[in-house]
Amino acid sequence: MATTRHDGIAPLFVLHSSVRFTHTDPAGYVFFPRYFEMLQAVVEEWFNHALQQKYADLIMRRRLGTPTASIQCTFLKPSRLGDDLAIAVKIENIGNSSFRLRFIGSVEDNLRLEAVSTLVMICLDDGMARSIPPDLRARMESYQAGSWPS
Amino acid sequence: MATTRHDGIAPLFVLHSSVRFTHTDPAGYVFFPRYFEMLQAVVEEWFNHALQQKYADLIMRRRLGTPTASIQCTFLKPSRLGDDLAIAVKIENIGNSSFRLRFIGSVEDNLRLEAVSTLVMICLDDGMARSIPPDLRARMESYQAGSWPS
Amino acid sequence: MATTRHDGIAPLFVLHSSVRFTHTDPAGYVFFPRYFEMLQAVVEEWFNHALQQKYADLIMRRRLGTPTASIQCTFLKPSRLGDDLAIAVKIENIGNSSFRLRFIGSVEDNLRLEAVSTLVMICLDDGMARSIPPDLRARMESYQAGSWPS
Amino acid sequence: MATTRHDGIAPLFVLHSSVRFTHTDPAGYVFFPRYFEMLQAVVEEWFNHALQQKYADLIMRRRLGTPTASIQCTFLKPSRLGDDLAIAVKIENIGNSSFRLRFIGSVEDNLRLEAVSTLVMICLDDGMARSIPPDLRARMESYQAGSWPS
Repeated sequence: MATTRHDGIAPLFVLHSSVRFTHTDPAGYVFFPRYFEMLQAVVEEWFNHALQQKYADLIMRRRLGTPTASIQCTFLKPSRLGDDLAIAVKIENIGNSSFRLRFIGSVEDNLRLEAVSTLVMICLDDGMARSIPPDLRARMESYQAGSWPS
Repeated sequence: MATTRHDGIAPLFVLHSSVRFTHTDPAGYVFFPRYFEMLQAVVEEWFNHALQQKYADLIMRRRLGTPTASIQCTFLKPSRLGDDLAIAVKIENIGNSSFRLRFIGSVEDNLRLEAVSTLVMICLDDGMARSIPPDLRARMESYQAGSWPS
Repeated sequence: MATTRHDGIAPLFVLHSSVRFTHTDPAGYVFFPRYFEMLQAVVEEWFNHALQQKYADLIMRRRLGTPTASIQCTFLKPSRLGDDLAIAVKIENIGNSSFRLRFIGSVEDNLRLEAVSTLVMICLDDGMARSIPPDLRARMESYQAGSWPS
Repeated sequence: MATTRHDGIAPLFVLHSSVRFTHTDPAGYVFFPRYFEMLQAVVEEWFNHALQQKYADLIMRRRLGTPTASIQCTFLKPSRLGDDLAIAVKIENIGNSSFRLRFIGSVEDNLRLEAVSTLVMICLDDGMARSIPPDLRARMESYQAGSWPS
Protein backbone atom coordinates (compact mmCIF):
# COMPACT_ATOMS: atom_id res chain seq x y z
CA MET A 1 0.00 0.00 0.00
CA ALA A 2 2.63 2.47 1.04
CA THR A 3 5.45 2.41 -1.44
CA THR A 4 7.95 5.05 -2.35
CA ARG A 5 8.76 6.96 -5.46
CA HIS A 6 12.05 8.54 -6.38
CA ASP A 7 11.79 12.02 -7.59
CA GLY A 8 15.29 13.17 -8.37
CA ILE A 9 16.23 13.98 -4.81
CA ALA A 10 14.11 12.37 -2.13
CA PRO A 11 11.78 9.36 -2.02
CA LEU A 12 8.12 10.23 -1.65
CA PHE A 13 5.34 8.41 0.14
CA VAL A 14 2.93 6.91 -2.41
CA LEU A 15 -0.48 5.38 -1.80
CA HIS A 16 -1.97 3.07 -4.40
CA SER A 17 -5.76 3.07 -4.75
CA SER A 18 -7.83 0.84 -6.99
CA VAL A 19 -10.36 2.78 -8.98
CA ARG A 20 -13.65 1.13 -8.04
CA PHE A 21 -17.24 1.13 -9.23
CA THR A 22 -17.96 3.46 -6.30
CA HIS A 23 -15.68 6.10 -7.80
CA THR A 24 -16.97 6.10 -11.35
CA ASP A 25 -19.71 8.03 -13.07
CA PRO A 26 -22.03 7.34 -16.02
CA ALA A 27 -19.20 8.28 -18.37
CA GLY A 28 -17.13 5.43 -16.85
CA TYR A 29 -14.56 7.84 -15.40
CA VAL A 30 -13.75 8.75 -11.83
CA PHE A 31 -16.28 11.36 -10.69
CA PHE A 32 -14.11 14.26 -9.51
CA PRO A 33 -15.38 14.56 -5.89
CA ARG A 34 -14.23 10.96 -5.36
CA TYR A 35 -10.63 12.03 -6.02
CA PHE A 36 -10.85 14.26 -2.97
CA GLU A 37 -11.93 11.29 -0.83
CA MET A 38 -8.84 9.50 -2.17
CA LEU A 39 -6.64 12.49 -1.30
CA GLN A 40 -8.00 12.39 2.25
CA ALA A 41 -7.09 8.68 2.43
CA VAL A 42 -3.60 9.58 1.19
CA VAL A 43 -3.23 12.19 3.96
CA GLU A 44 -4.31 9.61 6.56
CA GLU A 45 -1.85 6.96 5.37
CA TRP A 46 0.89 9.56 5.03
CA PHE A 47 0.38 10.44 8.70
CA ASN A 48 0.27 6.74 9.62
CA HIS A 49 3.41 5.74 7.73
CA ALA A 50 5.56 8.70 6.80
CA LEU A 51 4.94 10.76 9.96
CA GLN A 52 4.52 7.72 12.22
CA GLN A 53 1.45 9.31 13.79
CA LYS A 54 -1.68 7.18 13.61
CA TYR A 55 -4.25 9.52 12.10
CA ALA A 56 -7.05 7.95 14.18
CA ASP A 57 -5.05 8.77 17.34
CA LEU A 58 -4.39 12.31 16.13
CA ILE A 59 -8.17 12.81 15.89
CA MET A 60 -9.40 10.77 18.82
CA ARG A 61 -6.58 10.98 21.38
CA ARG A 62 -4.77 14.21 20.58
CA ARG A 63 -8.05 15.86 19.47
CA LEU A 64 -6.30 17.51 16.54
CA GLY A 65 -7.83 17.71 13.09
CA THR A 66 -6.45 18.76 9.70
CA PRO A 67 -9.26 20.38 7.73
CA THR A 68 -8.49 21.53 4.21
CA ALA A 69 -8.43 25.32 3.98
CA SER A 70 -7.95 25.45 0.24
CA ILE A 71 -7.22 23.08 -2.58
CA GLN A 72 -6.33 23.42 -6.21
CA CYS A 73 -6.59 20.37 -8.42
CA THR A 74 -5.97 19.79 -12.11
CA PHE A 75 -7.30 16.62 -13.70
CA LEU A 76 -4.97 15.97 -16.62
CA LYS A 77 -6.49 12.76 -17.89
CA PRO A 78 -9.50 10.73 -16.73
CA SER A 79 -9.05 7.52 -14.73
CA ARG A 80 -11.22 4.47 -15.22
CA LEU A 81 -12.53 1.48 -13.32
CA GLY A 82 -9.70 -0.94 -12.55
CA ASP A 83 -6.93 1.65 -12.82
CA ASP A 84 -4.27 1.49 -10.12
CA LEU A 85 -3.93 5.14 -9.15
CA ALA A 86 -0.67 5.94 -7.36
CA ILE A 87 -0.68 9.23 -5.46
CA ALA A 88 2.61 10.66 -4.17
CA VAL A 89 2.85 13.31 -1.44
CA LYS A 90 5.30 16.19 -1.33
CA ILE A 91 5.51 18.87 1.36
CA GLU A 92 5.55 22.31 -0.22
CA ASN A 93 5.59 24.35 2.96
CA ILE A 94 5.40 23.98 6.73
CA GLY A 95 3.90 27.05 8.41
CA ASN A 96 3.04 27.69 12.04
CA SER A 97 -0.40 26.10 12.15
CA SER A 98 -0.78 25.03 8.53
CA PHE A 99 1.12 23.01 5.95
CA ARG A 100 0.91 22.74 2.20
CA LEU A 101 1.00 19.41 0.41
CA ARG A 102 1.36 18.60 -3.28
CA PHE A 103 -0.22 15.40 -4.57
CA ILE A 104 0.89 13.83 -7.83
CA GLY A 105 -1.44 11.12 -9.11
CA SER A 106 -0.49 8.75 -11.89
CA VAL A 107 -1.42 5.43 -13.45
CA GLU A 108 1.61 3.50 -14.71
CA ASP A 109 3.63 6.72 -14.82
CA ASN A 110 0.99 8.59 -16.79
CA LEU A 111 0.11 11.73 -14.90
CA ARG A 112 -3.59 11.89 -14.06
CA LEU A 113 -3.92 14.67 -11.53
CA GLU A 114 -1.93 17.19 -9.61
CA ALA A 115 -3.22 18.96 -6.52
CA VAL A 116 -1.97 21.44 -3.96
CA SER A 117 -3.76 21.58 -0.66
CA THR A 118 -3.38 23.73 2.44
CA LEU A 119 -4.29 21.91 5.64
CA VAL A 120 -4.73 23.63 8.97
CA MET A 121 -3.98 22.03 12.31
CA ILE A 122 -6.97 22.67 14.58
CA CYS A 123 -8.06 21.58 18.00
CA LEU A 124 -11.28 19.59 17.61
CA ASP A 125 -12.63 20.81 20.94
CA ASP A 126 -12.76 24.49 20.03
CA GLY A 127 -12.25 24.42 16.27
CA MET A 128 -9.36 26.93 16.57
CA ALA A 129 -6.01 26.71 14.80
CA ARG A 130 -3.08 25.34 16.78
CA SER A 131 0.67 25.39 16.20
CA ILE A 132 1.81 22.14 14.62
CA PRO A 133 3.08 20.12 17.63
CA PRO A 134 6.91 19.89 17.76
CA ASP A 135 7.00 16.09 17.27
CA LEU A 136 4.92 16.31 14.10
CA ARG A 137 6.84 19.32 12.82
CA ALA A 138 10.13 17.45 13.28
CA ARG A 139 8.82 14.46 11.33
CA MET A 140 7.43 16.72 8.61
CA GLU A 141 10.86 18.31 8.28
CA SER A 142 12.50 14.89 8.07
CA TYR A 143 10.02 13.87 5.39
CA GLN A 144 10.74 17.04 3.47
CA ALA A 145 14.46 16.21 3.69
CA GLY A 146 13.78 12.76 2.27
CA SER A 147 14.39 10.90 5.49
CA TRP A 148 11.42 8.89 6.72
CA PRO A 149 10.68 5.26 7.60
CA SER A 150 9.79 4.07 4.07
CA MET B 1 -34.66 25.76 -4.62
CA ALA B 2 -33.46 27.99 -7.39
CA THR B 3 -33.52 31.56 -6.22
CA THR B 4 -31.57 34.56 -7.41
CA ARG B 5 -29.04 36.86 -5.88
CA HIS B 6 -28.28 40.38 -6.90
CA ASP B 7 -24.68 41.16 -7.24
CA GLY B 8 -24.42 44.80 -8.23
CA ILE B 9 -25.16 44.25 -11.87
CA ALA B 10 -26.82 40.97 -12.75
CA PRO B 11 -28.88 38.44 -10.80
CA LEU B 12 -27.18 35.10 -10.25
CA PHE B 13 -28.60 31.63 -10.05
CA VAL B 14 -28.41 30.34 -6.48
CA LEU B 15 -29.01 26.83 -5.21
CA HIS B 16 -29.79 26.28 -1.54
CA SER B 17 -28.59 23.02 0.02
CA SER B 18 -29.25 21.81 3.54
CA VAL B 19 -26.11 20.61 5.25
CA ARG B 20 -26.97 17.06 6.24
CA PHE B 21 -25.54 14.34 8.45
CA THR B 22 -24.23 12.75 5.24
CA HIS B 23 -22.01 15.77 4.64
CA THR B 24 -20.46 16.11 8.06
CA ASP B 25 -17.37 14.61 9.63
CA PRO B 26 -16.36 13.68 13.18
CA ALA B 27 -15.55 17.33 13.82
CA GLY B 28 -19.20 18.19 13.03
CA TYR B 29 -18.23 20.19 9.95
CA VAL B 30 -18.85 19.53 6.27
CA PHE B 31 -16.18 17.12 5.05
CA PHE B 32 -14.56 18.95 2.13
CA PRO B 33 -15.16 16.34 -0.64
CA ARG B 34 -18.90 16.68 0.05
CA TYR B 35 -18.74 20.33 -1.04
CA PHE B 36 -17.68 19.14 -4.49
CA GLU B 37 -20.75 16.90 -4.68
CA MET B 38 -22.80 19.99 -3.82
CA LEU B 39 -21.04 22.00 -6.55
CA GLN B 40 -21.92 19.26 -9.06
CA ALA B 41 -25.57 19.53 -7.94
CA VAL B 42 -25.35 23.30 -8.45
CA VAL B 43 -24.03 22.80 -12.00
CA GLU B 44 -26.91 20.41 -12.76
CA GLU B 45 -29.59 22.78 -11.47
CA TRP B 46 -27.92 25.73 -13.19
CA PHE B 47 -28.21 23.84 -16.48
CA ASN B 48 -31.81 22.88 -15.67
CA HIS B 49 -32.97 26.35 -14.71
CA ALA B 50 -30.62 29.08 -15.89
CA LEU B 51 -29.65 27.46 -19.21
CA GLN B 52 -33.00 25.73 -19.69
CA GLN B 53 -31.23 22.51 -20.64
CA LYS B 54 -32.19 19.50 -18.55
CA TYR B 55 -28.84 18.12 -17.40
CA ALA B 56 -30.14 14.54 -17.58
CA ASP B 57 -31.04 15.11 -21.24
CA LEU B 58 -27.64 16.67 -21.92
CA ILE B 59 -26.03 13.44 -20.67
CA MET B 60 -28.48 10.84 -21.88
CA ARG B 61 -29.97 12.31 -25.06
CA ARG B 62 -27.31 14.70 -26.37
CA ARG B 63 -24.53 12.43 -25.01
CA LEU B 64 -22.58 15.46 -23.82
CA GLY B 65 -20.81 15.57 -20.48
CA THR B 66 -19.14 18.36 -18.53
CA PRO B 67 -16.20 16.87 -16.61
CA THR B 68 -14.23 19.20 -14.40
CA ALA B 69 -10.75 19.82 -15.80
CA SER B 70 -9.53 21.85 -12.86
CA ILE B 71 -10.94 23.38 -9.73
CA GLN B 72 -9.67 25.75 -7.09
CA CYS B 73 -11.60 26.06 -3.88
CA THR B 74 -11.07 28.08 -0.72
CA PHE B 75 -13.01 27.14 2.38
CA LEU B 76 -13.29 30.38 4.36
CA LYS B 77 -15.31 29.12 7.30
CA PRO B 78 -16.65 25.68 8.15
CA SER B 79 -20.32 24.83 7.68
CA ARG B 80 -22.27 22.68 10.10
CA LEU B 81 -25.21 20.31 10.17
CA GLY B 82 -28.45 22.21 9.58
CA ASP B 83 -26.85 25.17 7.82
CA ASP B 84 -28.64 26.41 4.72
CA LEU B 85 -25.80 26.77 2.24
CA ALA B 86 -26.60 29.07 -0.69
CA ILE B 87 -24.28 28.68 -3.67
CA ALA B 88 -24.36 31.27 -6.45
CA VAL B 89 -22.98 30.69 -9.96
CA LYS B 90 -21.11 33.22 -12.07
CA ILE B 91 -19.66 32.62 -15.54
CA GLU B 92 -16.06 33.77 -15.65
CA ASN B 93 -15.28 32.73 -19.20
CA ILE B 94 -16.83 30.93 -22.18
CA GLY B 95 -14.21 29.26 -24.37
CA ASN B 96 -14.61 27.06 -27.42
CA SER B 97 -15.08 23.72 -25.69
CA SER B 98 -14.73 24.77 -22.07
CA PHE B 99 -16.21 27.28 -19.68
CA ARG B 100 -15.13 28.63 -16.34
CA LEU B 101 -17.57 29.06 -13.46
CA ARG B 102 -17.17 30.81 -10.13
CA PHE B 103 -19.16 29.51 -7.16
CA ILE B 104 -19.81 31.68 -4.13
CA GLY B 105 -21.16 29.77 -1.13
CA SER B 106 -22.62 31.48 1.90
CA VAL B 107 -24.81 30.88 4.92
CA GLU B 108 -27.00 33.87 5.77
CA ASP B 109 -24.64 36.15 3.84
CA ASN B 110 -21.54 34.85 5.60
CA LEU B 111 -19.10 33.67 2.98
CA ARG B 112 -18.19 30.02 3.44
CA LEU B 113 -16.44 29.01 0.24
CA GLU B 114 -15.38 30.33 -3.09
CA ALA B 115 -14.46 28.09 -6.01
CA VAL B 116 -13.44 28.48 -9.63
CA SER B 117 -13.92 25.50 -11.87
CA THR B 118 -13.12 24.81 -15.53
CA LEU B 119 -15.56 22.42 -17.14
CA VAL B 120 -15.01 20.85 -20.53
CA MET B 121 -17.76 19.90 -22.94
CA ILE B 122 -17.09 16.36 -24.12
CA CYS B 123 -18.90 13.79 -26.18
CA LEU B 124 -19.63 10.81 -23.94
CA ASP B 125 -19.27 8.36 -26.82
CA ASP B 126 -15.62 9.10 -27.55
CA GLY B 127 -14.57 11.15 -24.52
CA MET B 128 -13.26 13.92 -26.79
CA ALA B 129 -13.81 17.65 -26.32
CA ARG B 130 -16.56 19.27 -28.38
CA SER B 131 -17.37 22.89 -29.16
CA ILE B 132 -20.09 24.16 -26.86
CA PRO B 133 -23.26 23.78 -28.98
CA PRO B 134 -24.61 27.14 -30.25
CA ASP B 135 -27.88 26.92 -28.29
CA LEU B 136 -26.03 26.42 -25.00
CA ARG B 137 -23.46 29.08 -25.83
CA ALA B 138 -26.22 31.59 -26.54
CA ARG B 139 -27.88 30.85 -23.20
CA MET B 140 -24.55 31.03 -21.37
CA GLU B 141 -23.99 34.46 -22.92
CA SER B 142 -27.47 35.58 -21.86
CA TYR B 143 -26.77 34.33 -18.34
CA GLN B 144 -23.50 36.20 -18.30
CA ALA B 145 -25.37 39.35 -19.36
CA GLY B 146 -27.81 38.88 -16.50
CA SER B 147 -30.73 37.85 -18.65
CA TRP B 148 -32.08 34.40 -17.87
CA PRO B 149 -35.44 32.88 -16.83
CA SER B 150 -35.07 33.42 -13.06
CA MET C 1 -39.89 19.28 -1.00
CA ALA C 2 -42.07 17.83 1.70
CA THR C 3 -45.35 16.79 0.19
CA THR C 4 -47.84 14.20 1.31
CA ARG C 5 -49.16 11.02 -0.13
CA HIS C 6 -52.46 9.37 0.60
CA ASP C 7 -52.24 5.76 1.35
CA GLY C 8 -55.73 4.57 2.04
CA ILE C 9 -55.93 5.81 5.58
CA ALA C 10 -53.39 8.42 6.56
CA PRO C 11 -51.26 10.90 4.61
CA LEU C 12 -47.55 10.15 4.61
CA PHE C 13 -44.58 12.44 4.58
CA VAL C 14 -42.83 12.28 1.20
CA LEU C 15 -39.47 13.69 0.20
CA HIS C 16 -38.67 14.23 -3.45
CA SER C 17 -35.05 13.86 -4.52
CA SER C 18 -33.61 14.47 -7.95
CA VAL C 19 -31.42 11.64 -9.12
CA ARG C 20 -28.12 13.35 -9.87
CA PHE C 21 -24.86 12.52 -11.60
CA THR C 22 -23.42 12.03 -8.11
CA HIS C 23 -25.79 9.12 -7.52
CA THR C 24 -25.26 7.21 -10.73
CA ASP C 25 -22.83 4.51 -11.73
CA PRO C 26 -21.21 3.45 -15.01
CA ALA C 27 -24.41 1.60 -15.90
CA GLY C 28 -26.27 4.94 -15.68
CA TYR C 29 -28.34 3.77 -12.70
CA VAL C 30 -28.34 4.88 -9.10
CA PHE C 31 -25.50 3.10 -7.31
CA PHE C 32 -27.22 1.36 -4.39
CA PRO C 33 -25.22 2.90 -1.47
CA ARG C 34 -26.44 6.32 -2.68
CA TYR C 35 -30.02 5.27 -1.93
CA PHE C 36 -29.06 4.93 1.71
CA GLU C 37 -27.75 8.51 1.73
CA MET C 38 -31.14 9.53 0.31
CA LEU C 39 -32.93 7.54 3.04
CA GLN C 40 -30.89 9.39 5.66
CA ALA C 41 -31.95 12.70 4.08
CA VAL C 42 -35.56 11.49 4.23
CA VAL C 43 -35.20 10.73 7.94
CA GLU C 44 -33.76 14.21 8.56
CA GLU C 45 -36.56 15.99 6.69
CA TRP C 46 -39.16 13.76 8.32
CA PHE C 47 -37.86 14.89 11.72
CA ASN C 48 -37.78 18.52 10.54
CA HIS C 49 -41.28 18.57 9.12
CA ALA C 50 -43.41 15.68 10.33
CA LEU C 51 -42.04 15.53 13.88
CA GLN C 52 -41.34 19.27 14.08
CA GLN C 53 -37.92 18.54 15.57
CA LYS C 54 -35.03 20.09 13.69
CA TYR C 55 -32.69 17.15 13.12
CA ALA C 56 -29.64 19.41 13.48
CA ASP C 57 -30.88 20.47 16.92
CA LEU C 58 -31.56 16.86 17.88
CA ILE C 59 -27.89 16.10 17.17
CA MET C 60 -26.21 19.28 18.28
CA ARG C 61 -28.40 20.59 21.10
CA ARG C 62 -30.17 17.53 22.49
CA ARG C 63 -27.09 15.36 21.75
CA LEU C 64 -29.30 12.54 20.53
CA GLY C 65 -28.51 10.48 17.44
CA THR C 66 -30.48 7.93 15.45
CA PRO C 67 -28.05 5.33 14.10
CA THR C 68 -29.47 2.58 11.93
CA ALA C 69 -29.35 -0.78 13.71
CA SER C 70 -30.59 -2.79 10.77
CA ILE C 71 -32.00 -2.18 7.33
CA GLN C 72 -33.59 -4.30 4.68
CA CYS C 73 -33.98 -2.86 1.22
CA THR C 74 -35.37 -4.24 -2.02
CA PHE C 75 -34.58 -2.43 -5.25
CA LEU C 76 -37.47 -3.26 -7.54
CA LYS C 77 -36.43 -1.26 -10.56
CA PRO C 78 -33.39 0.89 -11.26
CA SER C 79 -33.60 4.69 -11.18
CA ARG C 80 -31.76 6.91 -13.62
CA LEU C 81 -30.26 10.38 -13.85
CA GLY C 82 -33.00 13.01 -13.88
CA ASP C 83 -35.63 10.82 -12.20
CA ASP C 84 -37.69 12.50 -9.49
CA LEU C 85 -37.61 9.92 -6.72
CA ALA C 86 -40.39 10.34 -4.15
CA ILE C 87 -39.79 8.52 -0.87
CA ALA C 88 -42.65 8.15 1.61
CA VAL C 89 -42.19 7.34 5.31
CA LYS C 90 -44.38 5.07 7.38
CA ILE C 91 -43.88 4.19 11.05
CA GLU C 92 -44.04 0.43 11.53
CA ASN C 93 -43.30 0.34 15.24
CA ILE C 94 -42.37 2.61 18.14
CA GLY C 95 -40.36 0.78 20.82
CA ASN C 96 -38.77 2.05 23.98
CA SER C 97 -35.47 3.27 22.54
CA SER C 98 -35.91 2.28 18.91
CA PHE C 99 -38.40 2.78 16.11
CA ARG C 100 -38.96 1.05 12.81
CA LEU C 101 -39.64 2.96 9.62
CA ARG C 102 -40.79 1.77 6.21
CA PHE C 103 -39.69 3.74 3.15
CA ILE C 104 -41.53 3.46 -0.13
CA GLY C 105 -39.67 4.98 -3.09
CA SER C 106 -41.32 5.62 -6.42
CA VAL C 107 -40.91 7.59 -9.64
CA GLU C 108 -44.24 8.75 -11.05
CA ASP C 109 -46.05 6.06 -9.06
CA ASN C 110 -43.76 3.27 -10.27
CA LEU C 111 -42.34 1.53 -7.26
CA ARG C 112 -38.55 1.62 -7.24
CA LEU C 113 -37.53 0.55 -3.77
CA GLU C 114 -38.95 -0.50 -0.45
CA ALA C 115 -36.95 -0.48 2.76
CA VAL C 116 -37.53 -1.19 6.43
CA SER C 117 -35.09 0.30 8.88
CA THR C 118 -34.71 0.09 12.64
CA LEU C 119 -33.27 3.24 14.17
CA VAL C 120 -32.05 3.49 17.73
CA MET C 121 -32.18 6.62 19.83
CA ILE C 122 -28.76 7.07 21.42
CA CYS C 123 -27.06 9.71 23.49
CA LEU C 124 -24.12 11.02 21.47
CA ASP C 125 -22.04 11.62 24.58
CA ASP C 126 -21.88 8.01 25.71
CA GLY C 127 -23.16 6.13 22.66
CA MET C 128 -25.77 4.34 24.80
CA ALA C 129 -29.42 3.80 23.89
CA ARG C 130 -31.96 6.18 25.43
CA SER C 131 -35.73 6.03 25.74
CA ILE C 132 -37.35 8.06 23.00
CA PRO C 133 -38.10 11.39 24.72
CA PRO C 134 -41.82 11.90 25.47
CA ASP C 135 -42.22 14.89 23.14
CA LEU C 136 -40.83 12.94 20.18
CA ARG C 137 -42.80 9.82 21.09
CA ALA C 138 -46.02 11.84 21.17
CA ARG C 139 -45.32 13.30 17.72
CA MET C 140 -44.39 9.88 16.34
CA GLU C 141 -47.71 8.56 17.60
CA SER C 142 -49.56 11.46 15.99
CA TYR C 143 -47.73 10.79 12.74
CA GLN C 144 -48.66 7.14 12.93
CA ALA C 145 -52.28 8.18 13.44
CA GLY C 146 -52.12 10.34 10.33
CA SER C 147 -52.17 13.63 12.15
CA TRP C 148 -49.13 15.79 11.53
CA PRO C 149 -48.45 19.33 10.26
CA SER C 150 -48.35 18.47 6.54
CA MET D 1 -5.50 -7.09 1.44
CA ALA D 2 -7.10 -10.39 0.52
CA THR D 3 -6.61 -12.83 3.34
CA THR D 4 -8.61 -15.87 4.29
CA ARG D 5 -10.59 -16.88 7.29
CA HIS D 6 -11.36 -20.38 8.47
CA ASP D 7 -14.90 -20.97 9.32
CA GLY D 8 -15.20 -24.54 10.41
CA ILE D 9 -15.26 -26.05 6.96
CA ALA D 10 -13.97 -23.86 4.19
CA PRO D 11 -11.69 -20.82 4.08
CA LEU D 12 -13.41 -17.58 3.14
CA PHE D 13 -12.19 -14.60 1.21
CA VAL D 14 -11.71 -11.63 3.55
CA LEU D 15 -11.06 -8.02 2.66
CA HIS D 16 -9.59 -5.68 5.26
CA SER D 17 -10.61 -2.03 5.10
CA SER D 18 -9.33 0.79 7.25
CA VAL D 19 -12.09 2.88 8.69
CA ARG D 20 -11.26 6.39 7.51
CA PHE D 21 -12.35 9.93 8.22
CA THR D 22 -14.38 9.70 5.00
CA HIS D 23 -16.51 6.95 6.52
CA THR D 24 -17.30 8.53 9.85
CA ASP D 25 -20.10 10.78 11.01
CA PRO D 26 -20.42 13.49 13.69
CA ALA D 27 -20.86 10.74 16.28
CA GLY D 28 -17.40 9.41 15.31
CA TYR D 29 -18.86 6.14 14.00
CA VAL D 30 -19.05 4.77 10.49
CA PHE D 31 -22.06 6.34 8.76
CA PHE D 32 -24.11 3.35 7.61
CA PRO D 33 -24.28 4.11 3.84
CA ARG D 34 -20.44 3.97 3.83
CA TYR D 35 -20.61 0.30 4.84
CA PHE D 36 -22.41 -0.41 1.58
CA GLU D 37 -19.58 1.23 -0.37
CA MET D 38 -17.23 -1.10 1.53
CA LEU D 39 -19.40 -4.12 0.66
CA GLN D 40 -19.21 -3.14 -3.01
CA ALA D 41 -15.40 -3.00 -2.70
CA VAL D 42 -15.50 -6.47 -1.11
CA VAL D 43 -17.52 -7.80 -4.05
CA GLU D 44 -15.03 -6.31 -6.51
CA GLU D 45 -12.00 -7.82 -4.75
CA TRP D 46 -13.81 -11.13 -4.31
CA PHE D 47 -14.29 -11.25 -8.08
CA ASN D 48 -10.67 -10.22 -8.64
CA HIS D 49 -9.14 -12.75 -6.28
CA ALA D 50 -11.53 -15.55 -5.38
CA LEU D 51 -13.25 -15.83 -8.77
CA GLN D 52 -10.15 -14.81 -10.76
CA GLN D 53 -12.27 -12.45 -12.85
CA LYS D 54 -11.09 -8.86 -12.88
CA TYR D 55 -14.21 -6.90 -11.94
CA ALA D 56 -13.17 -4.01 -14.21
CA ASP D 57 -13.01 -6.44 -17.15
CA LEU D 58 -16.38 -7.91 -16.21
CA ILE D 59 -17.88 -4.43 -16.52
CA MET D 60 -15.88 -2.97 -19.36
CA ARG D 61 -15.00 -5.97 -21.55
CA ARG D 62 -17.72 -8.51 -20.85
CA ARG D 63 -20.29 -5.73 -20.33
CA LEU D 64 -21.79 -7.56 -17.38
CA GLY D 65 -22.83 -5.82 -14.19
CA THR D 66 -23.90 -7.09 -10.78
CA PRO D 67 -26.48 -4.67 -9.36
CA THR D 68 -27.81 -5.38 -5.90
CA ALA D 69 -31.46 -6.45 -6.03
CA SER D 70 -31.92 -6.60 -2.30
CA ILE D 71 -29.83 -6.34 0.81
CA GLN D 72 -30.39 -6.93 4.48
CA CYS D 73 -27.83 -5.64 6.92
CA THR D 74 -27.60 -5.71 10.70
CA PHE D 75 -25.11 -3.41 12.41
CA LEU D 76 -24.27 -5.15 15.66
CA LYS D 77 -21.77 -2.69 17.02
CA PRO D 78 -20.48 0.62 15.68
CA SER D 79 -17.03 0.89 14.08
CA ARG D 80 -14.75 3.86 14.58
CA LEU D 81 -11.98 5.76 12.82
CA GLY D 82 -8.84 3.64 12.66
CA ASP D 83 -10.60 0.29 13.04
CA ASP D 84 -9.41 -2.48 10.75
CA LEU D 85 -12.66 -3.91 9.47
CA ALA D 86 -12.36 -7.43 8.05
CA ILE D 87 -15.26 -8.51 5.85
CA ALA D 88 -15.60 -12.18 4.87
CA VAL D 89 -17.70 -13.42 1.94
CA LYS D 90 -19.80 -16.56 1.87
CA ILE D 91 -21.97 -17.76 -1.01
CA GLU D 92 -25.45 -18.58 0.20
CA ASN D 93 -26.97 -19.50 -3.12
CA ILE D 94 -26.18 -19.57 -6.83
CA GLY D 95 -29.28 -19.14 -8.98
CA ASN D 96 -29.66 -18.87 -12.73
CA SER D 97 -29.04 -15.15 -13.13
CA SER D 98 -28.57 -14.15 -9.50
CA PHE D 99 -26.48 -15.14 -6.51
CA ARG D 100 -26.76 -14.48 -2.82
CA LEU D 101 -23.79 -13.49 -0.70
CA ARG D 102 -23.40 -13.26 3.03
CA PHE D 103 -20.93 -10.74 4.43
CA ILE D 104 -19.55 -11.04 7.94
CA GLY D 105 -17.73 -7.93 9.17
CA SER D 106 -15.57 -7.93 12.27
CA VAL D 107 -12.85 -5.96 14.02
CA GLU D 108 -10.38 -8.21 15.83
CA ASP D 109 -12.94 -11.02 15.89
CA ASN D 110 -15.69 -8.81 17.33
CA LEU D 111 -18.66 -9.02 15.03
CA ARG D 112 -19.68 -5.61 13.70
CA LEU D 113 -22.09 -6.30 10.88
CA GLU D 114 -23.73 -9.11 9.01
CA ALA D 115 -25.36 -8.65 5.62
CA VAL D 116 -27.07 -10.79 3.02
CA SER D 117 -27.24 -9.44 -0.49
CA THR D 118 -28.79 -10.71 -3.71
CA LEU D 119 -26.88 -9.64 -6.79
CA VAL D 120 -28.20 -10.02 -10.30
CA MET D 121 -26.05 -10.61 -13.35
CA ILE D 122 -27.16 -8.15 -16.03
CA CYS D 123 -25.95 -7.15 -19.44
CA LEU D 124 -24.95 -3.49 -19.28
CA ASP D 125 -26.03 -2.86 -22.87
CA ASP D 126 -29.71 -3.65 -22.35
CA GLY D 127 -30.00 -3.75 -18.54
CA MET D 128 -31.58 -7.23 -18.72
CA ALA D 129 -30.74 -10.22 -16.52
CA ARG D 130 -28.39 -12.84 -17.97
CA SER D 131 -27.53 -16.36 -16.89
CA ILE D 132 -24.34 -16.41 -14.89
CA PRO D 133 -21.70 -17.38 -17.50
CA PRO D 134 -20.44 -20.97 -17.08
CA ASP D 135 -16.85 -19.97 -16.23
CA LEU D 136 -18.03 -17.71 -13.40
CA ARG D 137 -20.57 -20.27 -12.19
CA ALA D 138 -17.87 -22.95 -12.03
CA ARG D 139 -15.60 -20.69 -9.97
CA MET D 140 -18.48 -19.70 -7.69
CA GLU D 141 -19.13 -23.39 -7.08
CA SER D 142 -15.47 -24.00 -6.32
CA TYR D 143 -15.50 -21.08 -3.92
CA GLN D 144 -18.59 -22.46 -2.24
CA ALA D 145 -16.79 -25.80 -1.89
CA GLY D 146 -13.88 -24.05 -0.23
CA SER D 147 -11.50 -24.46 -3.13
CA TRP D 148 -10.22 -21.21 -4.54
CA PRO D 149 -6.82 -19.57 -5.15
CA SER D 150 -6.40 -18.03 -1.69
